Amino acid sequence: MHIHHEQLELRTNRKGLYEITHEVQSKIDRRGLLNGIVTVFVQHTSCSIVIMENADLSARHDLEEFFDRLVPEDADYFTHGSEGSDDMPSHIRMVLTRTSETIPIVDGRMQLGTWQGIFLFEHRRGSHHRKILITTIGERQ
Amino acid sequence: MHIHHEQLELRTNRKGLYEITHEVQSKIDRRGLLNGIVTVFVQHTSCSIVIMENADLSARHDLEEFFDRLVPEDADYFTHGSEGSDDMPSHIRMVLTRTSETIPIVDGRMQLGTWQGIFLFEHRRGSHHRKILITTIGERQ
Amino acid sequence: MHIHHEQLELRTNRKGLYEITHEVQSKIDRRGLLNGIVTVFVQHTSCSIVIMENADLSARHDLEEFFDRLVPEDADYFTHGSEGSDDMPSHIRMVLTRTSETIPIVDGRMQLGTWQGIFLFEHRRGSHHRKILITTIGERQ
Repeated sequence: MHIHHEQLELRTNRKGLYEITHEVQSKIDRRGLLNGIVTVFVQHTSCSIVIMENADLSARHDLEEFFDRLVPEDADYFTHGSEGSDDMPSHIRMVLTRTSETIPIVDGRMQLGTWQGIFLFEHRRGSHHRKILITTIGERQ
Repeated sequence: MHIHHEQLELRTNRKGLYEITHEVQSKIDRRGLLNGIVTVFVQHTSCSIVIMENADLSARHDLEEFFDRLVPEDADYFTHGSEGSDDMPSHIRMVLTRTSETIPIVDGRMQLGTWQGIFLFEHRRGSHHRKILITTIGERQ
Repeated sequence: MHIHHEQLELRTNRKGLYEITHEVQSKIDRRGLLNGIVTVFVQHTSCSIVIMENADLSARHDLEEFFDRLVPEDADYFTHGSEGSDDMPSHIRMVLTRTSETIPIVDGRMQLGTWQGIFLFEHRRGSHHRKILITTIGERQ
């Protein structure tokens, strides 16, 4: 039984979904993990990790539109605004989604369904450097 | 230390909550796992896995009503509609809830609280065949 | 490879966020776990575990305000009300957030980002006794 951690780094430059499925699978491949789980954990409070439909760009667009309406930047009761109008909404959007996902691994492959992809969901407008920790637990070949 | 995966399959025929607590515990029993964790992972992007109050049907009803209002089918800005008006809302409802739950196991039993049950939360109206992967990690007897 | 469970108990007396980061790290320290993961699981359906910005109290305040508006106590379609008007909203707020968080451990420390804290998010107004199970999996020194 082996435990291993690897860092994945990502540069974002707008709100929205950034697919990282291949990057995560490639870390698993490099370690030769055959059977176990992987936890994908993002070390920030203004972006999320989500599993989402990965086939159709229009689905991602509609998801982003929904979140912009559910958590608007100009809510008149927000008091936490020193880092810009997209800062407080980013924390709320993170709490409404997820900081990590855990995915089973069988025969060396993540057991994602046909349309499932792993995404960083960026909630801030500017340029950001995001750190993701990928932890595998299981049996190697 | 053992890792084991088992598939659970479920037929749904309406939106709403389907309890799977007993099915998950019975997979754990069959493997004889005494001490560890179980991850319940659903391989779809239009339904979720959630832990929810399992005693009172009215709580489930109100939860379903809430989600129908939070993510209505007829939002005028949706562009992803080729699979029907309940398709885009199903992806949003999935992102707002969870794709997996991880539950501790002690003395062979999931350590759920008194009122906690594990549910598949179906977000589509028609008939669907849902696949759930149940991964146990831990010590056997 | 070791698996260990420890209980953390907490008394709450109002809706809102209660930080438990230090309590979780101190359970990890006591077991001498060096490398692995920790799962923090709350055994209730009317409060949540979330990772949230831990530096600024105004961010927590705004998050609580957002949830009070997103899931109001007086929705006219709620039927599940026997335990008080904050009961049904508490289940919905729990489903919209998380029942557990899983965090990587490296060199004995949880790999939280600079601003990430672990919180119990209480959704009920009265006094409540909350039970949290902390499960560590990994290698000891």
